[in-house]
Amino acid sequence: MDPQSIFETDIFRLRGTEIEPADDLVAVEEPLEIQVRAPGDTEWTSLSVTMRTPGHDCELAAGFLLGEGVVRSPSDIAGVEHWGPPSGELRVRNVVRVALAESARFDASLLRRNFYTTSSCGICGKASLAAIDAMRPNVLPQRPIGVCAGTLFQLPAKLREAQAVFGCTGGLHAAALFTPAGECLAVREDVGRHNAMDKLTGYALQNGMDLGGNIVLVSGRASFELLQKALLAGVPFLAAVGAPSSLAVQLARSFGMTLVGFLRDGRCNVYTGAERIQR
Amino acid sequence: MDPQSIFETDIFRLRGTEIEPADDLVAVEEPLEIQVRAPGDTEWTSLSVTMRTPGHDCELAAGFLLGEGVVRSPSDIAGVEHWGPPSGELRVRNVVRVALAESARFDASLLRRNFYTTSSCGICGKASLAAIDAMRPNVLPQRPIGVCAGTLFQLPAKLREAQAVFGCTGGLHAAALFTPAGECLAVREDVGRHNAMDKLTGYALQNGMDLGGNIVLVSGRASFELLQKALLAGVPFLAAVGAPSSLAVQLARSFGMTLVGFLRDGRCNVYTGAERIQR
Repeated sequence: MDPQSIFETDIFRLRGTEIEPADDLVAVEEPLEIQVRAPGDTEWTSLSVTMRTPGHDCELAAGFLLGEGVVRSPSDIAGVEHWGPPSGELRVRNVVRVALAESARFDASLLRRNFYTTSSCGICGKASLAAIDAMRPNVLPQRPIGVCAGTLFQLPAKLREAQAVFGCTGGLHAAALFTPAGECLAVREDVGRHNAMDKLTGYALQNGMDLGGNIVLVSGRASFELLQKALLAGVPFLAAVGAPSSLAVQLARSFGMTLVGFLRDGRCNVYTGAERIQR
Repeated sequence: MDPQSIFETDIFRLRGTEIEPADDLVAVEEPLEIQVRAPGDTEWTSLSVTMRTPGHDCELAAGFLLGEGVVRSPSDIAGVEHWGPPSGELRVRNVVRVALAESARFDASLLRRNFYTTSSCGICGKASLAAIDAMRPNVLPQRPIGVCAGTLFQLPAKLREAQAVFGCTGGLHAAALFTPAGECLAVREDVGRHNAMDKLTGYALQNGMDLGGNIVLVSGRASFELLQKALLAGVPFLAAVGAPSSLAVQLARSFGMTLVGFLRDGRCNVYTGAERIQR
C-alpha cells in the first residue's frame, strides 16, 4: 500500500465517559488536477480537480478520460505522468498530465464554465486550507458549547429515527442539525452527501439561524468538502458516523472546529476540539 | 416526504437460488443546475450542476453558495426559486435561480474552466442518458456472461479481504474487478467512490483488458456516475453493496447492463439484466 495514502494522527478515543489519547490512521485526501494536451496544442488544459487519495494517480486520470468518452483504447493516450514537484506537508505530487494521441476525442468546447471554486485549487491540501482562510469565514464563537458524551452517543439513533426516506430506499445520505442538548432541529437527505449538507446549511441560512452553538451529524464519512461547508455555515462541531479524511482533520484543526468520527455504539474518535465535549 | 424523491420500480429479489419479482423503491437522482445573477447583470450565470435528490432545492442552492463564501447572511440573497417547466419522465424542475443582493461576494473570475462534461447537462436525467448515448460507447457484448448466484454472493467477502487500506483507516471506498468465476483481478480504493472506479477502469485500459466479460463490485452505493464509468469502460455487470439511485437504474436499463444492489448476506436485488445471473 502506498504510504502516501495513510496519515497518522493523535486523537482521543471516547468510550462511555472514559477518554484516552491514541494514535489513529486516516485516509489521505488531497486534490488532484488532471491536465490534457491534444496533438498540436502548445498549452496544457486543466480538465478536472478531484479530491482523491494519492496512489494510482495515472490510472485515475486514464479512467476519468475513459468515463468521459475522451479515450477508448490504450493507444488514445500518448503518455501520462505526474508533473511538478511534491508539495504540501505530505509531499504528494498533485498534478497528472495526459498527452492525448490523434485518435482521442477531446473537444475543448465541452469544457463548461460551470464549476465555481474558491478552494481545492489543485496544488495541495495546504493551499486548499489557505483558500478557505482567504474567504474569511465568520470566526467561530469562542463560547464553549458543552456537549455531554452521553448526549453525543444518542445522536446517531435520533438521526436514523428522523430519516424518512432512508427507511424506504436505503439509498440516501443524511445531515442533521442538533442542539448541544441533543434536540434534532432539522434533517436533510440526498444521494450526494455534499447536497444533504448544502440543504441543511441552506435551511439554516434562510431561517436566519445562528449555528455557532450547534452540532451537525453526517450519516457517512467526513470529507474536506463537508468540513468546509460546516465551517462556512459557522458550525463549530461536526460529528460523523464514518471515518474522516486527512484533510478534514487538518481543516478542523486549522479553524478550531471539533471533529468526531466513528460515532456509533456508544463510542467515538475525537480528532480535534475535545474541549467541547463534557464527560 | 417529497414524492419526487422516491422512484418505484420492478426488480427481482435473489436469495440463495430463489428469485422472485418484487416492487422496490429507490432514491431519485436527477441533475440540478444552480444559476446566479448579481445586481446589474443582465444574464444568468450557470454556477454548478450537481446530481441530487429532488426536494429542498432552494435550500440546496443557498447552502452551496454559503459553502463557497458567496453569501453569508439571508440578506445576501434577493430571491431564490425554481426556473423552467418540469422535465423528464419524473416531471422534476431541475434549475434553481438565485438572485444575489449587493452584499453578496460573487466573483465571476472564480468560475474556472476545469469541469469537463459530456453528460449531466442539467436539464433532466433523460438528457443525461442521451448525452451518454451520443458518446457512442462500445456496444456491450451480446455474449451472455453467466455468473452463478453463489459466486455473486461471495464477492463482497473477497472485496473486504482485498481492501488493504480500509482495514487501517475505515475510510475508503473500493471498486473491484472480478471474473464471472469470482476471481478478483484488481481492487482500487479512494476517499471518493468515483475516483476508486476511475483507478480501476484506468488500470484495465492501460493494460488493454477487455472488460466485456467481467463484473465490477463497488463497496457503497451505485450512482449514475458510477454506472456511466462502468459502461464507458465496457463493463456489462455492476454490483453494489449498497443501494442504487433511480438514474443508475435507468442508465443500466437503457444500455443493457446488469445492475445488482444490496449485495450482502447471501442476497441481493437485481434491478435489470437478470439474464446474466445463473442459479
